[in-house]
Amino acid sequence: MTTHALPVSFDPHHPEACTVGVDFGTLSGRAVVVRVRDGAELGSAVHAYRHAVIEDRLPLTDAPLPPDWALQHPEDWRDVLRTAVPAALADAGVDAAHVIGIGTDFTACTVLPATADGVPLALLPEWADRPHAWPKLWKHHAAQDQADRINALAHERGEPWIGRYGGRISSEWQFAKALQVLEEDPAVYAACARWIEAADWIVWQLTGAESRNTCTAGYKGIHQDGRYPSPDFLAGLHPDFADFPATRLEHPLSALGSRAGGLSAVAAEWTGLPEGIAVATGNVDAHVAAPAAGAVENGRLLAIMGTSTCHVLNGATLADVPGICGVVDGGIVAGAYGYEAGQSAVGDIFAWWLRQGVPEDYRTEAAATGEDLHQLLTRKAAGRPVGAHGLVALDWMNGNRSTLVDHHLSGVLVGLTLDTRPEDVYLALLEATAYGTRVIVEAFEAGGIPVEEFIVTGGLRKNALLMQICADVLRRPVSLGTSEQGPALGSAIHAAVAAGAHPDVRSAASVMGSVQRHAYTPDPARADTYDALFAEYRALHDHFGTGPDLLLHRLRRLRNTARATPTA
Amino acid sequence: MTTHALPVSFDPHHPEACTVGVDFGTLSGRAVVVRVRDGAELGSAVHAYRHAVIEDRLPLTDAPLPPDWALQHPEDWRDVLRTAVPAALADAGVDAAHVIGIGTDFTACTVLPATADGVPLALLPEWADRPHAWPKLWKHHAAQDQADRINALAHERGEPWIGRYGGRISSEWQFAKALQVLEEDPAVYAACARWIEAADWIVWQLTGAESRNTCTAGYKGIHQDGRYPSPDFLAGLHPDFADFPATRLEHPLSALGSRAGGLSAVAAEWTGLPEGIAVATGNVDAHVAAPAAGAVENGRLLAIMGTSTCHVLNGATLADVPGICGVVDGGIVAGAYGYEAGQSAVGDIFAWWLRQGVPEDYRTEAAATGEDLHQLLTRKAAGRPVGAHGLVALDWMNGNRSTLVDHHLSGVLVGLTLDTRPEDVYLALLEATAYGTRVIVEAFEAGGIPVEEFIVTGGLRKNALLMQICADVLRRPVSLGTSEQGPALGSAIHAAVAAGAHPDVRSAASVMGSVQRHAYTPDPARADTYDALFAEYRALHDHFGTGPDLLLHRLRRLRNTARATPTA
Repeated sequence: MTTHALPVSFDPHHPEACTVGVDFGTLSGRAVVVRVRDGAELGSAVHAYRHAVIEDRLPLTDAPLPPDWALQHPEDWRDVLRTAVPAALADAGVDAAHVIGIGTDFTACTVLPATADGVPLALLPEWADRPHAWPKLWKHHAAQDQADRINALAHERGEPWIGRYGGRISSEWQFAKALQVLEEDPAVYAACARWIEAADWIVWQLTGAESRNTCTAGYKGIHQDGRYPSPDFLAGLHPDFADFPATRLEHPLSALGSRAGGLSAVAAEWTGLPEGIAVATGNVDAHVAAPAAGAVENGRLLAIMGTSTCHVLNGATLADVPGICGVVDGGIVAGAYGYEAGQSAVGDIFAWWLRQGVPEDYRTEAAATGEDLHQLLTRKAAGRPVGAHGLVALDWMNGNRSTLVDHHLSGVLVGLTLDTRPEDVYLALLEATAYGTRVIVEAFEAGGIPVEEFIVTGGLRKNALLMQICADVLRRPVSLGTSEQGPALGSAIHAAVAAGAHPDVRSAASVMGSVQRHAYTPDPARADTYDALFAEYRALHDHFGTGPDLLLHRLRRLRNTARATPTA
Repeated sequence: MTTHALPVSFDPHHPEACTVGVDFGTLSGRAVVVRVRDGAELGSAVHAYRHAVIEDRLPLTDAPLPPDWALQHPEDWRDVLRTAVPAALADAGVDAAHVIGIGTDFTACTVLPATADGVPLALLPEWADRPHAWPKLWKHHAAQDQADRINALAHERGEPWIGRYGGRISSEWQFAKALQVLEEDPAVYAACARWIEAADWIVWQLTGAESRNTCTAGYKGIHQDGRYPSPDFLAGLHPDFADFPATRLEHPLSALGSRAGGLSAVAAEWTGLPEGIAVATGNVDAHVAAPAAGAVENGRLLAIMGTSTCHVLNGATLADVPGICGVVDGGIVAGAYGYEAGQSAVGDIFAWWLRQGVPEDYRTEAAATGEDLHQLLTRKAAGRPVGAHGLVALDWMNGNRSTLVDHHLSGVLVGLTLDTRPEDVYLALLEATAYGTRVIVEAFEAGGIPVEEFIVTGGLRKNALLMQICADVLRRPVSLGTSEQGPALGSAIHAAVAAGAHPDVRSAASVMGSVQRHAYTPDPARADTYDALFAEYRALHDHFGTGPDLLLHRLRRLRNTARATPTA
């Protein structure tokens, strides 16, 4: 470790050259310092957002929020730059002068209204008391009505782009959220000069200049074939919405891994990094993880498994795959069609069951053996023959993102008996998420996009029981991304490319990413039984998930009506 | 209270005349002393069976039993006469000389092989080591193969009686269990001179002479239109089974409430009751409860709700109602067609959820408030608008007795979300059992047997939330049998008739039975929402419960295959 100042133009091919990757998650931001020659993660730090997710009341004014809202505070994000980046550097014991670039990734679609200078309206006193002035977090779900209308009109008019999104755009995305602002608070909409993804806004904070990335523009902004939806189409939603892209979105798009600009003096002051180093174009947490896990080549499906699961896959050809989240040219890596799919809840489902479905005597046993509840249930469930619990579940406790694209679905549990035990249900829930993954893999292959390797990253890759179930259910090996912090490492890889240390993301990934090939392989006998169980899952999936009039929708409507009724 | 001896011929119309009712349950026997002029319950006592349910090993020899077996010890039953009856008299402070009769009821079909003198084979040293020599408790479920063959052959031959049992007889009943003995231990079968319901055997112990009652003969013994199944039919099951009724069952049937005989000297010694007093004909615990709850008139459906639910209903006409357990002329009360239906699990389902589905923090809260878990979940669930949980369940965790008559079905839970709480599931399970009851009520009415009043007895009548749900789901008032010990009171009522204190069971019931009319009435708004939810239950019921190839059956087969596989 050296302490003397080094010139800004530190040689990107120097063996000690590093980049910083910063991953902005839902509750915290994480920075990691990575050596560009081999991807070694030298140090990291986490900063928890002070306001976390704003769901009930606005900061400062304490104004109450309607149901299904989810906002964030822009200052929390800047605090990550101010605290986690210097802390990661300190943790790494790396001289800041060795850092040649910084890259970032963000949750998406997390989007905010800003002035022409990039100042969030939420931070201006005249707007701070208006909920629509605040950044809408990805899981803000109050724009479903707008999304429904966008979808209906797109199909009615035969818009060419709707097929790129599996036939349905999400209420989470830019257009639905912006239309909600326009309709519910036209003054905020009028004051919004830039409607910008947090992924791009944070880069603006680092460089001092606006940029837009291909990934969020494509997956969240309906940017296809070089253009946004037409004014004609948008006028059909609301007359004042016709010029929304032209006035609030339009900006040249930058390829992933490109240099968005140099680190500004202000940002250098915040981060402790050298002014002028490369700042990589913005990116999304899931997509940026692909190079970290060696999943940039076509046909390598990366599942980022955590509270929910995101699947990213590159393909050589453009296809409309029904039920996927989207396909974007260069959406994951330049030069390939990037496909995205997802499962709305995975780890969240297991956590739900661990929280609610485990009785006191199990906790007592876990305390005695020193296990956590997951370990206890895993021990009780593992080793039994497949299917011995007699259960099949539908993993829709938070709706279904792919391939049904229906957030009004809910979970189903079939085969319960008086001797069904908590570990039986737990195992059935693990299996259900694997079945859900198989539906997605089969959809890609049926749509003409080959899946040649299945790679898992994210926290759940450490769940050995789940990984083996995935291998057995998919009848294919499961490889593991080995980094503890895939997205942050991915951002550091993009920073290394932006800084010129590697010629492109593919070659950077081959040096800096890491994957444990075929960590789990399918057991043929278990896979046979899982084939039979998957057939039952599929039967339930089709019965409950498709059709003109769904029982689960009727049940949801009854529920919502009941909840809107004053309590007796 | 007097202590001097009174003559045996105590005036049955004396204001202090009493009878004793004895209810033989699954784990214990209960005696109650009742005043015949008004039904006042003067005292009671319970005796727990020393051997309880014999499921794992035979007494004495410790020989292991196969799965699904359930036996009992005849001496445990006689111990009830020796201990609970004198204890109930002492509790009542009633002079034994005031007792004019004794009546009994039993679980059914609980059945045993005996000698021509009524000695249980199980109590003879030469047979005591053979499992098939022992009484088979109602829930002995190891004769399913025999039941399946009986049903198949009955339909193949178009036997007229099969329609009286909803199209399917149960593995729990006399013929299936006897055929199992014949096929698995022909020597025991050969030594069996009488194949007799415990309900009749206990009366034999009291009077010293065999008698047979119309209720068990009809509901459990396939006795219809004056005869048992034909030798021709039975020969089709096994050549040596052809003469089974003639050799082991045939005996004149006695009407319920008739005098089977006088109390023998031996039984007088056991019980402390006067020799020679009336002993009522045997009866079944569910059916005998009807007069205790004022449910003997046609159209009054009595639901005996406990771990499972039995429904009994008198009708003026004979109809084959699909899916009911049975219809027997005089099966509940002489002069009416008695209909029986059932739900395989009710309280058992709630207990299952309370045992498994309630996390530690709920238990902590309950301990703090002094509530039990049922009270805690009830408080959390009650008062919310109907349907606010968004759930519908199928109450088949122990199969479906009526109207699907399918023990291979299993439970289903639909509408789960990440905010589904334990009380939500609990409420959905309560509702599911009410929906199951509505299916049965609708089946009776569709079959031409009117249901004019709905009366509940048994332990669950104290569950106010469940009772209100029943009223709302059924859209009709719920009346309650008020006795704490409906079956034992019913037996005492039958004893009063047998002793001549009342001319018949109907008039005795009007004096000695008691019912709280319309204790719960439906709330129209809640009933409207329940109509909508019941429609969803019905849709699930039909989807999962009917059809040539059922997902739940396939799942059960997968489960059974898996469980038969050696553990990895």
